Amino acid sequence: MSSLPLRPGLAPTQTPSEPFVWPVRVYWEDTDAGGVVFYANYLRFLERARTEWLRTLGFGQEALRTDPGVLFVVAELHLQYRASARLDDELQVSVVVRERGAASLLMTQEVRKNGALLVAATVKAGCVDARTMRPTRIPAVLARML
Amino acid sequence: MSSLPLRPGLAPTQTPSEPFVWPVRVYWEDTDAGGVVFYANYLRFLERARTEWLRTLGFGQEALRTDPGVLFVVAELHLQYRASARLDDELQVSVVVRERGAASLLMTQEVRKNGALLVAATVKAGCVDARTMRPTRIPAVLARML
Amino acid sequence: MSSLPLRPGLAPTQTPSEPFVWPVRVYWEDTDAGGVVFYANYLRFLERARTEWLRTLGFGQEALRTDPGVLFVVAELHLQYRASARLDDELQVSVVVRERGAASLLMTQEVRKNGALLVAATVKAGCVDARTMRPTRIPAVLARML
Amino acid sequence: MSSLPLRPGLAPTQTPSEPFVWPVRVYWEDTDAGGVVFYANYLRFLERARTEWLRTLGFGQEALRTDPGVLFVVAELHLQYRASARLDDELQVSVVVRERGAASLLMTQEVRKNGALLVAATVKAGCVDARTMRPTRIPAVLARML
Repeated sequence: MSSLPLRPGLAPTQTPSEPFVWPVRVYWEDTDAGGVVFYANYLRFLERARTEWLRTLGFGQEALRTDPGVLFVVAELHLQYRASARLDDELQVSVVVRERGAASLLMTQEVRKNGALLVAATVKAGCVDARTMRPTRIPAVLARML
Repeated sequence: MSSLPLRPGLAPTQTPSEPFVWPVRVYWEDTDAGGVVFYANYLRFLERARTEWLRTLGFGQEALRTDPGVLFVVAELHLQYRASARLDDELQVSVVVRERGAASLLMTQEVRKNGALLVAATVKAGCVDARTMRPTRIPAVLARML
Repeated sequence: MSSLPLRPGLAPTQTPSEPFVWPVRVYWEDTDAGGVVFYANYLRFLERARTEWLRTLGFGQEALRTDPGVLFVVAELHLQYRASARLDDELQVSVVVRERGAASLLMTQEVRKNGALLVAATVKAGCVDARTMRPTRIPAVLARML
Repeated sequence: MSSLPLRPGLAPTQTPSEPFVWPVRVYWEDTDAGGVVFYANYLRFLERARTEWLRTLGFGQEALRTDPGVLFVVAELHLQYRASARLDDELQVSVVVRERGAASLLMTQEVRKNGALLVAATVKAGCVDARTMRPTRIPAVLARML
């Protein structure tokens, strides 16, 4: 059998930025009939954390879209589901920038509950022009902070 | 800089099963303020296709859960977003089994529009006992068909 | 105690149009930890049926938005939840126009399973200019068909 | 034309309890291609506020489900959509109990942005046995606080 096409993470030699952590509460809307959070809904949690992390840096998404007119779009995503979250759980969702390119960001994100890792994610986001949706450089004012 | 932690797909030497294809229409609920399908919602489309593929083989998820009492849960997921789907688009979502383990399935899935690839996914699903949620062998009656 | 602020339906003397019916399958994404369809998700089913009914009349929503540049937005909604849908259920969602105003439509919609009524809805939608989002007359070409 | 089957609210002579207010931030996941919050997603916001209001009273939903083994399910819902919320908006979602029956609650809820009313809702919830899903009395320990 061939090896798995999915790789579990980044080399430990990289020095990440300090993690940003955002709390997320699990509501009925997030769960499914299996009694746990539906697998797609962790992507909503990950996006909330990225949005709040940008906001903390001073960049609302709506503002970024208007001026300087850019959006971040997810280009690639790798997820490992280790354990399940349930109704009423309080989760912590982190964001760490691993690599910054001219027009892209590579981040790792984790969803944890009381310290225990539930979901590990690697997210590659591209910066695009909000009108044309074509790749464009990350605005200098933002790039300086990443 | 280290190489990307995400790998783009499977070696071409593997012989996949014939793809199963399920049509999905894009509704308002699927889109976001960027005018395109929200990135998490493709996971809903992928899940619908896997469910319908199992149904075609004769296995409803509700029935599987009751007797023989198993569920398939996604353990690992890799997604590449190549292009965006929009409101009213008609998409084709495929499922191909790449590897079958005793208690797991490795599948590749694609979301296409008029033949153009929008999203490429590799999905590793595990078979678990519906009560204990612990890994268990894929029931023989189903394994024979995969 | 005051009477209920919610009224259960329309007077039987009105003559509705022939109902349009759209099938909806219940997937994991639709359910919650209670084992049933999450109450907000019926609104997604109702919207799909309205969209498909307009499409049957020859009007895609994306096309309506571009030319003649209108959208239908829900202004008021009344829902009665009678029974629950579950994973794998096949539902029938209907649309009947009850009243057509110059810039609005009053519709009743039902979600049924094997004939049994699960959810009864009354929906008032307004026609708005897609740019200004202000009320505008229903385009004549569409109004003729309602 | 017949009168509208939907009634706009409650008589002003009722004396409501003090409103509970819960903040909700609008993320990409909540919006649709019209640039505004998708109409079904306000029901998620309403549910979060009801859940947090119960939690403030000392009753987590998961705990209620286990002991004393009850759930609250929405039986009837009336919504008026007055104005739209957009990406990054900070909303305030309120809950006020209007009438308490032996096995049901009638509540009004509002979604506001900087004081402006966006959505007004009347929600009738029933208390049901978590196992049988049949109506049951609101537990005395909770009823005393409503």
